[in-house]
Amino acid sequence: MERRSIVKKMLASIAGISVLGFAKASPIQTADEKEVNNVTEYEDVPLFSGSTRLGNMIFVAGKGAHVEPFEIKAHTEIVLKELETELKKAGSSMEKVLKVNVYLNDIADYQGMNEVYKGRFGKKPPVRTTVAVAKGGVPGNSLVEMDCIAYV
Amino acid sequence: MERRSIVKKMLASIAGISVLGFAKASPIQTADEKEVNNVTEYEDVPLFSGSTRLGNMIFVAGKGAHVEPFEIKAHTEIVLKELETELKKAGSSMEKVLKVNVYLNDIADYQGMNEVYKGRFGKKPPVRTTVAVAKGGVPGNSLVEMDCIAYV
Amino acid sequence: MERRSIVKKMLASIAGISVLGFAKASPIQTADEKEVNNVTEYEDVPLFSGSTRLGNMIFVAGKGAHVEPFEIKAHTEIVLKELETELKKAGSSMEKVLKVNVYLNDIADYQGMNEVYKGRFGKKPPVRTTVAVAKGGVPGNSLVEMDCIAYV
Repeated sequence: MERRSIVKKMLASIAGISVLGFAKASPIQTADEKEVNNVTEYEDVPLFSGSTRLGNMIFVAGKGAHVEPFEIKAHTEIVLKELETELKKAGSSMEKVLKVNVYLNDIADYQGMNEVYKGRFGKKPPVRTTVAVAKGGVPGNSLVEMDCIAYV
Repeated sequence: MERRSIVKKMLASIAGISVLGFAKASPIQTADEKEVNNVTEYEDVPLFSGSTRLGNMIFVAGKGAHVEPFEIKAHTEIVLKELETELKKAGSSMEKVLKVNVYLNDIADYQGMNEVYKGRFGKKPPVRTTVAVAKGGVPGNSLVEMDCIAYV
Repeated sequence: MERRSIVKKMLASIAGISVLGFAKASPIQTADEKEVNNVTEYEDVPLFSGSTRLGNMIFVAGKGAHVEPFEIKAHTEIVLKELETELKKAGSSMEKVLKVNVYLNDIADYQGMNEVYKGRFGKKPPVRTTVAVAKGGVPGNSLVEMDCIAYV
């Protein structure tokens, strides 16, 4: 009897774990909730977060550079540091980035951006999509904006 | 014998659940298929969906506003409502959005867009990336286009 | 005794599977690592990957067309083929794409792009976001750039 009871408890316990695993696979039953970091407000109302997380996926907000010198290498350096700061805050890292979007103010800055960008995400770099938007099209006159998707 | 048989059945049943959970963790074995909503056709051929879903992740198509008045607050309102409609159709909500991309027709509309955008995604807002593309660069002359990634 | 031992082993084995499933649901414990394909280097340093994978999610880099003729239908065809090549290399397919981003050099190419794009992702197409960036804003003078998120 005691053994049966122990087995039952073990089964119940395993079932509990299994059901959690299953809940993940079957999203309608999931209890997963997103977490957010570093909320920016506008007129005292939440506008956007610096990062959001669901499960092991991390989404980082578009980051720009808004200070002198207005030069592509300096701005790329600032933006990469901002991404890294958000990633670390979320428990991730540059090496765990899956996808980066790069928005340049001017396509002429493509090579300069690459000079600073190369190697910054480790030996297994994320995919990347780069385009130049309208002149002045990055908010705050940044020469470059980047966002990313990563994991923990 | 009977007890052994019951234990075996329970084990088999638990194993079944576990294997599903494991299949999710080990994607090569996964039976997950995407679901789509609201397919737009072009010349009677599927062009794009309004939303796609894989597991608990939801992807919503870029939404624009194509009606009078061609004014940023009005267009932002329309676009946010379109996102919300797609999210609800997919079983999600504004509060469950993880990432938004905002494409403006004109960077001068940044503040006007923010006025309408703020607070619309709840107290834990998604990350956001905003850029202004080419003048007239949003299809259908919309002043703003937004897409998002969410969950259920 | 033997039976007890077998039951214990079975329980341990199932627990092992369950814990993996649970590890997936509880990302801090996950052992998941990204995989990458087709790394492009810049000055002998990794710059970006052609695709990255985490679990069953696949991210494909922005693809452009850099050859004659500089005509939207030809370039769209090249870009779609490049996406397909990366998807297959990653074990995925056009039918398993969840989200596409299309960056045009000129909004006037919207219809021409659609002519080639329609039907290419099967009957359950991905969501899509299309914008025209700056003239010349797609690297390498491509008339169109596309990236995607897919699954395996």
